[in-house]
Amino acid sequence: MAKDISKAVIRRLPRYYRYLGELMEEGVERISSHDLSERMHVTASQIRQDLNNFGGFGQQGYGYNVNFLYEEIGKILGLTRRHPMIVIGAGHLGQAIANYVKFEKLGFLIIGLFDVDPALVGTAVRDIPVLSISELPEFLQTHEVEIAALTMPKAEADSIVNTLTGNGIRAIWNFAHVDLAVTDMVVENVHLSDSLMELSYRILQSE
Amino acid sequence: MAKDISKAVIRRLPRYYRYLGELMEEGVERISSHDLSERMHVTASQIRQDLNNFGGFGQQGYGYNVNFLYEEIGKILGLTRRHPMIVIGAGHLGQAIANYVKFEKLGFLIIGLFDVDPALVGTAVRDIPVLSISELPEFLQTHEVEIAALTMPKAEADSIVNTLTGNGIRAIWNFAHVDLAVTDMVVENVHLSDSLMELSYRILQSE
Repeated sequence: MAKDISKAVIRRLPRYYRYLGELMEEGVERISSHDLSERMHVTASQIRQDLNNFGGFGQQGYGYNVNFLYEEIGKILGLTRRHPMIVIGAGHLGQAIANYVKFEKLGFLIIGLFDVDPALVGTAVRDIPVLSISELPEFLQTHEVEIAALTMPKAEADSIVNTLTGNGIRAIWNFAHVDLAVTDMVVENVHLSDSLMELSYRILQSE
Repeated sequence: MAKDISKAVIRRLPRYYRYLGELMEEGVERISSHDLSERMHVTASQIRQDLNNFGGFGQQGYGYNVNFLYEEIGKILGLTRRHPMIVIGAGHLGQAIANYVKFEKLGFLIIGLFDVDPALVGTAVRDIPVLSISELPEFLQTHEVEIAALTMPKAEADSIVNTLTGNGIRAIWNFAHVDLAVTDMVVENVHLSDSLMELSYRILQSE
């Protein structure tokens, strides 16, 4: 697998995957880079460049085979296998994430929610149990969990990361407002406020 | 204001803003690009390049004045004024957004939530009222609203966008799983699943 793909390309791959998925749902079997570019609002040359990072996938004068390209990008993104996941923090954001049926379709299976609030422990979201945070270490011993989504307050993040470390967790999907310094796990920080600030910048520019 | 700043730079500005805010909280008054780069895990030359887009802000051998740089980036991002906002969809995600006190600190003031569910209408989140979606047109006539966050199902997005168009809304912060085709408003699409797919890619690469 190519190792030197730029972050910008990687960031665009999920978008290709989404658009190709929609084309499949519409029954489209092949598409030219021109038509795909119009649909995605990027240039055809950008699409060709991006996909050339992985060997191309297109044929001159024929375009892209939608289903094949979808499957190949899925392989590159690691979506051909299951990713068992837990959510730590069963407040509104944690419950919103547990409710996204789409994540499950992509292979991200939420198998447990954890919280400190006794009022939440014992409840369930779409049959996913909300467990006490005190049960987390044992849960990690008895279940294979690849990803932990952190949706609890920033102040608790460090102690949770300690519990996760060395217990088989491969990655943290972090919504707590802190850039975690973790070296032995993959960390993806989601800062919703960054997106809002970008929006504000674009409003200013549009004036 | 510079108009040709690359998207990648704009995407990094909120991150500078966050880090500078943290430095201010810690009482740090100035910082070298070297120390800032260590803290942010980017290269010092990247920081200098990024900030040169806006005229630099640094002094050779002195570093950056933290408070000044924070204020200047805030101006660039349009954070020196208030951005009244509504949230359409008062489910878990909508309520999570309404609960983020941080957005308010940045000037994004949520003044109303809207939903179709009679069980939610009439309730409130942090004193922000949940109103019926049928009240939206009148609300837009009588309140100045700059940003609408869409957290309701994809199927309803188009009809909501129609209601928002021509009613003073400047921007849509879109969490519905559809890239909206809107020409007369700024649209920022947030695809949480894209972030999860990037995470999956990085897990695969780390093996």
